[in-house]
Amino acid sequence: MRPSKRAPAELRPITLERGVSKYAEGSCLVKFGDTHVLCTASLEDGVPSWLRGQRRGWVTAEYGMLPRATHDRTRREVTSGKPSGRTQEIQRLIGRSLRAVVDLEALGERQISIDCDVIQADGGTRTAAITGAWVALRDCLEWMGARDMIKKTVLKDHVAAVSCGIWKGVPVLDLDYAEDSVAETDANFVMTGTGGIVEIQGTAEGKPFTDEQLMALMGLAKDGIAKLVELQKLAIL
Amino acid sequence: MRPSKRAPAELRPITLERGVSKYAEGSCLVKFGDTHVLCTASLEDGVPSWLRGQRRGWVTAEYGMLPRATHDRTRREVTSGKPSGRTQEIQRLIGRSLRAVVDLEALGERQISIDCDVIQADGGTRTAAITGAWVALRDCLEWMGARDMIKKTVLKDHVAAVSCGIWKGVPVLDLDYAEDSVAETDANFVMTGTGGIVEIQGTAEGKPFTDEQLMALMGLAKDGIAKLVELQKLAIL
Amino acid sequence: MRPSKRAPAELRPITLERGVSKYAEGSCLVKFGDTHVLCTASLEDGVPSWLRGQRRGWVTAEYGMLPRATHDRTRREVTSGKPSGRTQEIQRLIGRSLRAVVDLEALGERQISIDCDVIQADGGTRTAAITGAWVALRDCLEWMGARDMIKKTVLKDHVAAVSCGIWKGVPVLDLDYAEDSVAETDANFVMTGTGGIVEIQGTAEGKPFTDEQLMALMGLAKDGIAKLVELQKLAIL
Amino acid sequence: MRPSKRAPAELRPITLERGVSKYAEGSCLVKFGDTHVLCTASLEDGVPSWLRGQRRGWVTAEYGMLPRATHDRTRREVTSGKPSGRTQEIQRLIGRSLRAVVDLEALGERQISIDCDVIQADGGTRTAAITGAWVALRDCLEWMGARDMIKKTVLKDHVAAVSCGIWKGVPVLDLDYAEDSVAETDANFVMTGTGGIVEIQGTAEGKPFTDEQLMALMGLAKDGIAKLVELQKLAIL
Amino acid sequence: MRPSKRAPAELRPITLERGVSKYAEGSCLVKFGDTHVLCTASLEDGVPSWLRGQRRGWVTAEYGMLPRATHDRTRREVTSGKPSGRTQEIQRLIGRSLRAVVDLEALGERQISIDCDVIQADGGTRTAAITGAWVALRDCLEWMGARDMIKKTVLKDHVAAVSCGIWKGVPVLDLDYAEDSVAETDANFVMTGTGGIVEIQGTAEGKPFTDEQLMALMGLAKDGIAKLVELQKLAIL
Amino acid sequence: MRPSKRAPAELRPITLERGVSKYAEGSCLVKFGDTHVLCTASLEDGVPSWLRGQRRGWVTAEYGMLPRATHDRTRREVTSGKPSGRTQEIQRLIGRSLRAVVDLEALGERQISIDCDVIQADGGTRTAAITGAWVALRDCLEWMGARDMIKKTVLKDHVAAVSCGIWKGVPVLDLDYAEDSVAETDANFVMTGTGGIVEIQGTAEGKPFTDEQLMALMGLAKDGIAKLVELQKLAIL
Repeated sequence: MRPSKRAPAELRPITLERGVSKYAEGSCLVKFGDTHVLCTASLEDGVPSWLRGQRRGWVTAEYGMLPRATHDRTRREVTSGKPSGRTQEIQRLIGRSLRAVVDLEALGERQISIDCDVIQADGGTRTAAITGAWVALRDCLEWMGARDMIKKTVLKDHVAAVSCGIWKGVPVLDLDYAEDSVAETDANFVMTGTGGIVEIQGTAEGKPFTDEQLMALMGLAKDGIAKLVELQKLAIL
Repeated sequence: MRPSKRAPAELRPITLERGVSKYAEGSCLVKFGDTHVLCTASLEDGVPSWLRGQRRGWVTAEYGMLPRATHDRTRREVTSGKPSGRTQEIQRLIGRSLRAVVDLEALGERQISIDCDVIQADGGTRTAAITGAWVALRDCLEWMGARDMIKKTVLKDHVAAVSCGIWKGVPVLDLDYAEDSVAETDANFVMTGTGGIVEIQGTAEGKPFTDEQLMALMGLAKDGIAKLVELQKLAIL
Repeated sequence: MRPSKRAPAELRPITLERGVSKYAEGSCLVKFGDTHVLCTASLEDGVPSWLRGQRRGWVTAEYGMLPRATHDRTRREVTSGKPSGRTQEIQRLIGRSLRAVVDLEALGERQISIDCDVIQADGGTRTAAITGAWVALRDCLEWMGARDMIKKTVLKDHVAAVSCGIWKGVPVLDLDYAEDSVAETDANFVMTGTGGIVEIQGTAEGKPFTDEQLMALMGLAKDGIAKLVELQKLAIL
Repeated sequence: MRPSKRAPAELRPITLERGVSKYAEGSCLVKFGDTHVLCTASLEDGVPSWLRGQRRGWVTAEYGMLPRATHDRTRREVTSGKPSGRTQEIQRLIGRSLRAVVDLEALGERQISIDCDVIQADGGTRTAAITGAWVALRDCLEWMGARDMIKKTVLKDHVAAVSCGIWKGVPVLDLDYAEDSVAETDANFVMTGTGGIVEIQGTAEGKPFTDEQLMALMGLAKDGIAKLVELQKLAIL
Repeated sequence: MRPSKRAPAELRPITLERGVSKYAEGSCLVKFGDTHVLCTASLEDGVPSWLRGQRRGWVTAEYGMLPRATHDRTRREVTSGKPSGRTQEIQRLIGRSLRAVVDLEALGERQISIDCDVIQADGGTRTAAITGAWVALRDCLEWMGARDMIKKTVLKDHVAAVSCGIWKGVPVLDLDYAEDSVAETDANFVMTGTGGIVEIQGTAEGKPFTDEQLMALMGLAKDGIAKLVELQKLAIL
Repeated sequence: MRPSKRAPAELRPITLERGVSKYAEGSCLVKFGDTHVLCTASLEDGVPSWLRGQRRGWVTAEYGMLPRATHDRTRREVTSGKPSGRTQEIQRLIGRSLRAVVDLEALGERQISIDCDVIQADGGTRTAAITGAWVALRDCLEWMGARDMIKKTVLKDHVAAVSCGIWKGVPVLDLDYAEDSVAETDANFVMTGTGGIVEIQGTAEGKPFTDEQLMALMGLAKDGIAKLVELQKLAIL
C-alpha cells in the first residue's frame, strides 16, 4: 500500500486551472495532489541575441520555488547569488520539453518565457510544471492567434510529464515526496500527445536497475501521460 | 473619480485567507484588490549570530515578486545575483514593522522568518505584505503556544499598513497601480492596533508637499489602518 | 542634557567647504560635527539607457563609507560583492532628494553623478550628505553655466536634510551617534529652501510614536533645515 | 557512412592512461578519439558539513573545460562568476555515477574529489569523464588501501558511460561532435560492470523518439559499455 | 623640463599628517603633491584562520579609490562585484611591504588592517600609500604599546616607497600622472630605512629597458626613499 | 646542493612541444621540469571596446590552474566567483610581456587570446607560461601569415621569462617549489631575445635584499633567458 493509498498506476488528483494571472498572456495553476505550481507564459519582443535574424522564435523557461514551499524553509536563491544546479537542470528540461512541440519558425522572431513557480512542493514539481506550462503556453499562443500575430499551427502537439519510480520493489506512478525520498529508482518521462518520447531521465538512487524495470516504468508513464493529456484537453475546452 | 471608482477614503476589497500553506507554521494569502501576497511564517531554530546568547529572539522578513506578477515580465532577481535596492528596502521595512509589536525576549532564542511573495502586483504590495504578515506571524505564535513553546504575550499588538497619496490634488487612500504611477506624493504608513505610528515614509514624486497635506494623508491612513486591524481581528476569530 | 551638551533644537557645528576636489565639476566637504562627508558632482555624457531620447537629464547619487569611518572597522563593501541594503536605501534617498529641486528637462540629456563618501561617521551621514551634495551639484551646474551648457534655471530651489529623534523622551535635533543609538524614534526630513517637504522617514525604534511627537519633530526639522539652507547660501556667496 | 568512417556500433579509439599526475592519489587521462579528459582523484579530510558524524564518506566531482578545448574559444567560467547550468548538470551526473559503485560506509568519513578537466572536446566529454574517473577513483582507493586506510571492498563494481544517438535515422554508438551536432536523438547511458543501469538520459533534439528506438540505443550502449569496462580492466592490470 | 618644473631627482611636496581619524588606532593623510591618500590602521582581534594558533600576528592592507579621485569618474568597485586586478595587486604590495618591517611574533595573535583610500589621484598612489601607511601603522603600535599590549620592538625599521621612470629618455623621480601616462618605463621601489630593497617592480611600457637604465632608476629611488624616511622621522617626532 | 641537485645557474629540463591542440591557431605545452603549462593562442574577431576604431590589435592572456595541479587540491576558482588576486596579477603580467614584442598596429583590429593553463605546478608557472605563450603566439601569427591576414613583421622579438632567488644565501636560477617556498628573495625576470628588460619583479620574502644581490640575480636571469630563447628558436625550426 502506497503512503497515499493509491494503486501503483494511479495518479494523484490533478487540476489545471487556467487564467489565474491578471497580466500574463497565458497562465495555469497546476496541482498534482499537494504539489502546486503556478505557470505563466509571457510574450516578449525579440529573441536571444544568438538567434537574431534567423526568422525563428524561442520558448524558454525559468523555475523557482517559494522558500516555504517545502517542509523546512529553504534559502531564497537570490541570497546565494545564483540559481542552484538543480534549478538550472529543471528549467532547461522544461524549456526543451516545450520546444519539442513548438514550430519555432511559425512563431516568428519572438520569445515566450514560461515561469514555473512552485507554491507548494510534495514531489514531482518538474513534471507538474511541464504539464501545466503546456496549458499556459497554449493560451499564450491562442492570445497571439486572436490578434493575428501567428497562425494556429505553432503548437504541434501536447506535451506532458510524469515521474515513476521503484518504491519498495514495486514500480509506481507519480511519486509524492514520501515515496520519492525512499525510492530505489526515480525516472522522469516527458512525452507528446501522440506518444513520442521527448525526454527520459532515469537514475538509480540505490542499486542499479534493469532493462525490465525500465520497461515497467515506461509502461506506467505512457498510461499516466495519456491521462494527463486528456486532462489538458478537458482544461482547454 | 478614482480610476477604481472608489471614494477618496475607501480601501480596495481586502481579504485575509489563513492556513493556505501545508507546511508553514503560519500563513496568510492577503489580497488588496488585485494585489495578492502570500505570507508565510517559518519557525527556525536559533537566531542570527550577532544575537546569540542574548536570550532574545528575532523576526525577519524576505520579500519577492514572481516575474509575471507585474504588467510586463520583470527579470527574476536571482539572475542578477542580488536583491535590488527596492527589494531590500521593503524587506527591511516589513521586518521592522513586525518587530515593533513583538516581545523578542518572550519569544526566546528563536527566529521567525516571514516570507512575503507577491503573486500579483497592482500597487501597495509592501503595505499588503505587512498586513498579511501580521496574520501569518500571529498563527505561527499560536502554533508555538499550543506546543507550550512560548507564553501568549509575545505579540503585543496588531500592526497593519496602508499607502496614501495625493492624486490629482486629492488625498486618497490605498493607491492602486493606476493611481500610484501618477500620484504627486506617495506615503506609506505603518501603525499599531492602538493607533501608534511605527513607520512613516512620505516622498514627493513631483513637487514638495506641505504639512497640511501630510496631515490629511495621515488622517486617511489612521482610518484605513483601523479598518485593516478590524479585518485582522475578524480573520483570526 | 544631551551628551554633546547641545540644546534640544541645536545643530552641531556645520561647515560646508567647497572646491575640495581638483577634478570634480563641483565638490563639497560637509561636516556635521564629527560626521564628515566628501561630496563630488561629476558631469557625465549621456543618460541611463531607459531615459535615452527623452530630452531629459538625470541626477543620481552613490554613497560609500570608508572602512574606518566608524568606531569599529567595517568590512569594505566590495569584498562582499554588493552594496548593502542600507547603502542602497541611502543612495536612492539622496538621488530623489536632489532631483526634487532640479529641472531635468533644462539639464538636457546629461547625467550628473553625485558621490557621497563618508570620511568619518558620527550619526546623520545621510542628512549631511544631502546637504553637502546640494552644494556640489550647484557648483557643477555653475561650471556648466559658465560654459554655456545650460541655462541658469536648472536648479529650482535649495534642498537640505536633518535628522530628529526622541531621545530620553525629549524631541531633539540633529542626532549624533551617541544619541541615535539609544533614541526611541528616529526621523529624517528632507525639505526645500521654501519649506516644502521632499521626504519624511520616521521609524519607531522602540515603542510607537504619536501624532504629537511627529509634529514636534517636524517643527524641529523645519527650523534646522532653515538654518542649513542659510549656511548653504553663505557657502556659495 | 559515419563522418568518422566508423560502423554504427563502433567506439572511437579509447585510451586510459594512468598515473599522469605527480600529486593526485589517482589520475587518468582518458581519450575517446579527439576528446581528451584529465581525471584526478583527490583524497580530502572530512566530509561535507551535512554528512558529518554519520560515519560515511562522500565522492564528489567537478567538471571544467579549458577555454580552447573547443573549436571556438569559450569564455572562462570564472569570468562569468559561476559554473554554467551545463557544467553543473555534468558534475552532478559524474558524482552520482561514481557513488553508485562505492560503499560510502566502508570509505569512512573522508571525501574523494574527482576533477574532470576537458583538455580537448570532440563530443562525449561527460561519458569519457565518467569512464576515466572510475580509473582515477580506483587508483585513489588502491593508494588508500596500501596505507591501510580502507578495506579493499570500497569499490563495488565498475562504472562506465557512453553516448548513443540517432544520426540520419540510424542508431549509432559514441557520437563525436560532427554527429552529435546533427543527431535527432541523443542519449547518455551509465552502466555498471555487471550490466545494471545507473543513469539514462535521452533527449529528442528534433522529433520525439519511439520505444523501439530507445531499445536500439540501449542495445548499442550495453555493448559499448561492456567494451569500456574491458578496457578499464586492462588499464588496471 | 618636467611638466611640474621639478628637477629629475626632485620629489613632489610631501606631507604626512597624523591623527586625522577620530576612531582609528593610527592614521595618516599622506600627500605626494596632488596625490592624497588617507591611511588608517585598525587593530582587530584575532588573525586570519590559516594563522590561528601559531602565536603570530598579521598586517594586511586594503586599497580603494574614491570614484572622483581621478580626472574622469571611475565606476565604484562595489558595483562591479569585486576588486579589480589592479586594486588587488596594490593591496597585496602594501601588505607585503609593511610586513617586511614588522616582527609578527612580537605582535602576538592580532591583526592590524591598514586601509589606504585615495582621496585624490595624481600618479604614485601606491607609493604614497606605503609611505603613509607606515606612519599609521607606527601610531597604531604606539597606541598598543601605551596599553602594554606589545613591546616596543615590533616595528623593526622604516619602510617607504617611490616611483621612478624614464620620461622622454631621462630617468626621473616620483612621477605624477602627466609623466606617468607617457613614461617609457615605470618602476616602483620599496625600501627600508636602512636601505634594503623590499620590493622592486619595473615594467617597460614601450621598448625594453637596459641594465644601466635600471641602475639609474635605482639610484634615484634610493635618494628619494632616504628623503621620505627623513620625513617620516620628522612626522613622528 | 639544491634539492634538485642542479648547479646554481642551471635550468630545469625544458621542453616546448608545439601543435598540441587540434583547434587552437597556435599551441605549446611547455615543461620546466615538473611544471607543465598548456598554452593556446586563439585568434578572435574584433578588439576590446575601448580599442575599437584605432586600427590596432590586442594580445591578452588568461591564466588558470587545474585544481589538482598542486600538492594539495586547491578550490576551483569558478566556485569562489572570481579569479584570485594572484591569478589576475599573473595574467596581466603575461599579457604585458607578450605585447612588448608585438607590433599591435601591424596586427590589425584583431585580438589574440592566450590561455595558459597549468596542468601541473612545481614552481615557476608564470615564467614557464610566458616562455611557452610566446611559441603559441608565434604559431598563431604564422597561421595568420599563411592566410595573408598579416605581414610577417608583427612579432618583433622573442620574449621569455625565468625566476631567480636567494636560496640559503646563494643566488640560484629557476626555482622549483621546494626552493621557492623557502627562498629569502624571489624575483621574476622577463626579457627579450635581444636582452632588453621587459619586466622585473623582486620581492624580499624575509629580510630585504641588497643592490649586489639584485645584480647577481639579474646576471643569472640573463643567462637563463638567453638559453630559453635558444630553445624557442630550436622549437620553431
